[in-house]
Amino acid sequence: MKLPSKYLEKAVEELSSLPGIGKRTALRLALNLLNRTEVEIETFARSLTDMKDFLKNCNICHNVSDAEVCSICNNPKRDLTTICIVEDIRDILAIEATDTFKGGYHVLGGVISPMDGIGPSDLNISALLDRIENGAITEIIFALSPTMEGDTTNYYLFKKLCNKEILITCLSRGVSVGTELQYADENSLGKSLLYRQPFKTNS
Amino acid sequence: MKLPSKYLEKAVEELSSLPGIGKRTALRLALNLLNRTEVEIETFARSLTDMKDFLKNCNICHNVSDAEVCSICNNPKRDLTTICIVEDIRDILAIEATDTFKGGYHVLGGVISPMDGIGPSDLNISALLDRIENGAITEIIFALSPTMEGDTTNYYLFKKLCNKEILITCLSRGVSVGTELQYADENSLGKSLLYRQPFKTNS
Repeated sequence: MKLPSKYLEKAVEELSSLPGIGKRTALRLALNLLNRTEVEIETFARSLTDMKDFLKNCNICHNVSDAEVCSICNNPKRDLTTICIVEDIRDILAIEATDTFKGGYHVLGGVISPMDGIGPSDLNISALLDRIENGAITEIIFALSPTMEGDTTNYYLFKKLCNKEILITCLSRGVSVGTELQYADENSLGKSLLYRQPFKTNS
Repeated sequence: MKLPSKYLEKAVEELSSLPGIGKRTALRLALNLLNRTEVEIETFARSLTDMKDFLKNCNICHNVSDAEVCSICNNPKRDLTTICIVEDIRDILAIEATDTFKGGYHVLGGVISPMDGIGPSDLNISALLDRIENGAITEIIFALSPTMEGDTTNYYLFKKLCNKEILITCLSRGVSVGTELQYADENSLGKSLLYRQPFKTNS
């Protein structure tokens, strides 16, 4: 695709560097931006640089935050003795949306993935170990994605934590709520049989 | 979706103002940008503001351009007596990619669409009429999208141009190359019968 302007070309190139945005979509976005006023584009661009310049990571849990300590770690109503280990902040949003967890979080910033060159030292693991060493943490919940990489990371963390006096739990795996059993994938169905739970009428 | 930072919230809001980008995708894009260095984000943001600040519209055909006159209008090898009327610059890219047209263009900047509040005065129509008045244009090709709005615009332009000594043509409509006839939509198939062409062995 040969564009008639090097400025447009540069904007399309930058936009198409975003995940899931191809050249054609990038051109559509660039032309949409081009139809806005200078002030609007300035505001758009500023919002991105401001995000980088002013966004902090919570000193405790590494969640994004405007302050040194995020609103979850700072909330006296939350029970920070139970820590949920997540991959990134989108997982926090997903868990918060369930409204069933009132503990704290720890954002790893990724999962161990040798294929992508991500090892344990690239993740916020030492900060987690420090937290456990210093704090009064009684339970760690592994809430990483149920993928190969998530499980590898769970195993790595388990090895690091199993000699400490902490309860280590993991999100339950099984059939999704609302699916028809015949369409459930065999892996999840197998797990749901293996880890079957005592029947309760209010569950 | 309640985000833990107002800077992130602002960036997500701006990104989700782009066409086809919802809140979730916008968050994914924002987090992707956040993982880049400050210089990279600066470059990203600058490419968008530079595009707005430095991009020009060709004085002749209204194509985007880095100079006062675009590379097509400026090319002595192109026959500017034949002008192809298009909606926006993506249509120019599509036509240029066919490598079958060596004339010039005129970018309307949209089509007449009363539903969206776009009337003839919002389009580059008076500039087109000036070009025809002053120049040596012998053929005008209507290359707007074969939609209701495109056809309305074609009709409006035809009314303006039909008393001038110019050949007025329109892109042929019919079955797409490579489709199976049984799956062609009835409208296109009907048009292809109505406007059937003399059979040529090299067509």
